Amino acid sequence: MAPLFKQMTIAGVGLIGGSLASIARREGLVERIVGLGRSQTNLDVAVERGMLDAATRDPAEAARGADLVVLAVPILSMRPTLERMRAYLKPDAVITDVGSVKGWVVRELEPLLPTGVALVAAHPVAGKETVGAASADPELFRGRRVIITPSAKSTADAIAKVEALWTAAGACVIRMEPDLHDAILARASHLPQIVASVLAAVLAEERVGGLLAADFGASGLRDTTRLAGSSWEIWRDIFISNRDAIVDALHLFGSAIEEFQELLEIGDLTGLERLFNRGRAMREKLVQ
Amino acid sequence: MAPLFKQMTIAGVGLIGGSLASIARREGLVERIVGLGRSQTNLDVAVERGMLDAATRDPAEAARGADLVVLAVPILSMRPTLERMRAYLKPDAVITDVGSVKGWVVRELEPLLPTGVALVAAHPVAGKETVGAASADPELFRGRRVIITPSAKSTADAIAKVEALWTAAGACVIRMEPDLHDAILARASHLPQIVASVLAAVLAEERVGGLLAADFGASGLRDTTRLAGSSWEIWRDIFISNRDAIVDALHLFGSAIEEFQELLEIGDLTGLERLFNRGRAMREKLVQ
Repeated sequence: MAPLFKQMTIAGVGLIGGSLASIARREGLVERIVGLGRSQTNLDVAVERGMLDAATRDPAEAARGADLVVLAVPILSMRPTLERMRAYLKPDAVITDVGSVKGWVVRELEPLLPTGVALVAAHPVAGKETVGAASADPELFRGRRVIITPSAKSTADAIAKVEALWTAAGACVIRMEPDLHDAILARASHLPQIVASVLAAVLAEERVGGLLAADFGASGLRDTTRLAGSSWEIWRDIFISNRDAIVDALHLFGSAIEEFQELLEIGDLTGLERLFNRGRAMREKLVQ
Repeated sequence: MAPLFKQMTIAGVGLIGGSLASIARREGLVERIVGLGRSQTNLDVAVERGMLDAATRDPAEAARGADLVVLAVPILSMRPTLERMRAYLKPDAVITDVGSVKGWVVRELEPLLPTGVALVAAHPVAGKETVGAASADPELFRGRRVIITPSAKSTADAIAKVEALWTAAGACVIRMEPDLHDAILARASHLPQIVASVLAAVLAEERVGGLLAADFGASGLRDTTRLAGSSWEIWRDIFISNRDAIVDALHLFGSAIEEFQELLEIGDLTGLERLFNRGRAMREKLVQ
């Protein structure tokens, strides 16, 4: 079988980019894999692990000859990265990304594309807590959802190739409008992150009678605040690039917290039970 | 060593009561253990597993001869249970409990105590997801905190005995005022439960473009909503009996959610970063 791409360039050889390189290699999808990065140490790790054929910190060098460019850098770094690569892209190159927000990415990148260059934005929905090429894992996406958000600059051929890459990774590929993706992820992913961070922030210094309340939490507090350990740098970009949808999701949640509080204050046990059991039903469906 | 109590009666032989019975037996703290329950099937399990010397569904029979009575029933069932036992208690019996709320328990039970009978309210802070005597585990409390909340009807001797029971269970015993306990647990335990339940309830039927948002959550959504699977019956009692402290905790949290939303709307990244990183700092301390 001929490889899908002759050369694949990965901008940002972290957990996601590095895992994708390992998969492309293992599945024989590409002949040559080039990594673009800022940290020479991290690039060296990726080369040593056999994930890359070449590594560079020069966007022009990384762009040259690439049939597929994967932008695996933080969301707000995508535009400047592509700006530095665009003059050196092949006229039929395909650009894709792995960002958690899609409308912003499409709107930022499409105007930069030279004629003939296609964009197929994508989001692998994979839980991740480690960073860097050292933690790359070719099994990272198996059984996970990858959401492809075709837009004006997506050709049928480019979509098919990007989908083939993710299918080879063992992921379940689905297509969605970019803004629909962002509204859904604001609720299913960005909201839980904020809820966990705010709960942890509220308890960070909360003392009663001189005692730190958080010292008396059990496993429930640990689970509910686990996401609060996430990196600000990654989430800053998500908050900026998906602001409106996140504000909507926070409205929904804030109103429900207020409703719970009011039901509790007036002692409406029927209302509380309904709200509580709606949560339990969702949870039971989730763990099925 | 002489046993701490000749007879210990456990009202409610579930996970907590059953585990406590197993510990008392293993450590030789009591000569005879009697279980009081409503479900004959569950009592039979406890007898078969050697946790009880006798099992009954009659409060009078359970009360007779008990040196220690452990109320391990839901919080709102404690008063009616003790009402049915009180006429048959030994004049020097010690009453204790394992409820998650302490001020209410002390206020409800103290007026019922015959002269000479002591009350030492206690709360083992142990994460638990299973129920019934079948899931009892003598290691359940090892390394956990047990909060003892002495009150007007606690004698020094009774406190010492109840603390000795929990120390034998491998728990770390601390003392606290009942209302201080409730304010702290409202923040560290009851608030996370409500946050998880409300988040899950909000997402239960939340659809965008016909798609169920919760279907697109990853491990973060699962962790943050894990507590939403808890039993309404247990939490109803906690919500009723610790209402004021929980309302205070919800105020704190609701205001912080509102603050986050406002910072996001005006694009105050410095403020968002401060809030986010306060959460991360709490989290890092929690996992140490």
